[in-house]
Amino acid sequence: MAAVRTTQKRAPFGERLAAALARYKTPLCMGIDPHLPLLPAVFGVATPKIGDTKTIAAIRSFALSAIDIAAGRLPAIKPQAAFFEQHGPEGMMMLAEIAAYARSKDLLVIMDAKRGDIGSTSAAYAEAFLGLDAPFQSDALTINAYMGTDTLMPFMEAADASGNGLFVLVRTSNPGSADLQEQIIDGKPLYQRLAEKLAPLSQRLQDKDNWSSLGIVAGATWPDEARQLRSILPASPFLIPGYGAQGAPASDALASLSRDTGCWQGGLVNASRGLTFPKAAANLSDMHSWQTAILDQLEGMVADLNAA
Amino acid sequence: MAAVRTTQKRAPFGERLAAALARYKTPLCMGIDPHLPLLPAVFGVATPKIGDTKTIAAIRSFALSAIDIAAGRLPAIKPQAAFFEQHGPEGMMMLAEIAAYARSKDLLVIMDAKRGDIGSTSAAYAEAFLGLDAPFQSDALTINAYMGTDTLMPFMEAADASGNGLFVLVRTSNPGSADLQEQIIDGKPLYQRLAEKLAPLSQRLQDKDNWSSLGIVAGATWPDEARQLRSILPASPFLIPGYGAQGAPASDALASLSRDTGCWQGGLVNASRGLTFPKAAANLSDMHSWQTAILDQLEGMVADLNAA
Repeated sequence: MAAVRTTQKRAPFGERLAAALARYKTPLCMGIDPHLPLLPAVFGVATPKIGDTKTIAAIRSFALSAIDIAAGRLPAIKPQAAFFEQHGPEGMMMLAEIAAYARSKDLLVIMDAKRGDIGSTSAAYAEAFLGLDAPFQSDALTINAYMGTDTLMPFMEAADASGNGLFVLVRTSNPGSADLQEQIIDGKPLYQRLAEKLAPLSQRLQDKDNWSSLGIVAGATWPDEARQLRSILPASPFLIPGYGAQGAPASDALASLSRDTGCWQGGLVNASRGLTFPKAAANLSDMHSWQTAILDQLEGMVADLNAA
Repeated sequence: MAAVRTTQKRAPFGERLAAALARYKTPLCMGIDPHLPLLPAVFGVATPKIGDTKTIAAIRSFALSAIDIAAGRLPAIKPQAAFFEQHGPEGMMMLAEIAAYARSKDLLVIMDAKRGDIGSTSAAYAEAFLGLDAPFQSDALTINAYMGTDTLMPFMEAADASGNGLFVLVRTSNPGSADLQEQIIDGKPLYQRLAEKLAPLSQRLQDKDNWSSLGIVAGATWPDEARQLRSILPASPFLIPGYGAQGAPASDALASLSRDTGCWQGGLVNASRGLTFPKAAANLSDMHSWQTAILDQLEGMVADLNAA
């Protein structure tokens, strides 16, 4: 692999995200989730298999082609690390390549890897994704705080040193999210308690009145809760999964964002399968038709979000 | 990479762990945490650097040499994925290699990667580590349940299908673990509530009166809590970090295990830095002396645990 690496600190993630939202005038983020059973026919593998060389080549082609469509139109992509890791070291090589490629096309890379561990181990994960010479070049990383806020510190230090950002998992939209996240502690659900603990950390990664580089993940299917979380974390970018295929309408997905001089600010609304695997594109036989189908889907979602 | 892969289902992890504990008569697990500043001088890199080819070769040699010492003496090793991932795809290639090597030496591989995500994404992580043809061959994987018990299902299905196991993060020993884990819900701390939710899942991965293949991570520094967790999860193996370098004495580390016909049963007591990076071995100049120092450390810990 020959990933292009940078050794220069960038402007803080929160500010770069705000600039990208203003520039592209949409909060839509393209999720890159190469889920094997959904890989479109045009990439030439009838029965994709894990770890198979042809399958890996097809996924690579799919991901790079999807990035080409996002480039110049959207602020960010969100690769899902698991779908690369399942193919082993070759899959991880591909993840490094597509992250570097997306960055070279001026897309922010939100690495969805949900990492987390105690101090020195978190520091190693931070090196992998957030360091200036990180092999998996990312502008922000999703992380898990179950072990406690002390375990977030190495991630914060790495993000601060390189100008990158973080999205801490706070509120998810899956049915079982109630198991821990909705448990009531002194009258408030756990996810709100976590957000309160994150508030001072968000301020620490905030420069003046700009957006912070410490964000949270807050599912699109809970708009009232997203507004409550916004009041606790006024300067944190929100990464909002669950729009599109998973079912939340644009108005719900946008509940925690604000419209500022003609563009949405305050976070990213992610669409993965609904955007890159629309049914209309599943069985097309030529690349041009596939590109047109994805571009139609993208433009439809951009319009839907801007009309909300 | 040419990892040896298996396509045969093994006996359930819980039963294989019990057999290994009986065979080696120690619950000691060797953590493989190649933390760069601690890499011993004998491996020939004075100033280890992330992603550097010589550094990666030195880590590989360290890990394989440590595994050789564990083989035939201990039931298991626990590689910490972060310390490999920070070196990028080459680091992940090394992780795949050392996992396969340890398995070929009859060591159980407890992959400490703390993965977790919603359904279909968890399924991809499960393929990476627990599938019959997994690139990162593991006998068990550590996972994070913050998103809810529904997100554990794909891991459970994969473990059940391949005869592998899981350790769900329940109680950790870091100072900030109180932030979420100790929050009181209806009179009980969150980590106990999580253990209660895991109880029926543990039974589901339990065959007759054998040990379950669904275990938990429970830090060694909280022995009273470990005993409480044992009463909630009588058949779950406990993975117990925090013995040795992190400071818990043997009696605390063993609080949730039981002595059965001359050997400890019910889990693994992990030692990482205290075992593979003892001060006495840091600056030795020949391999034989290094091996002797690690073996001394290993035998000292085995004796300490058996005397408790």
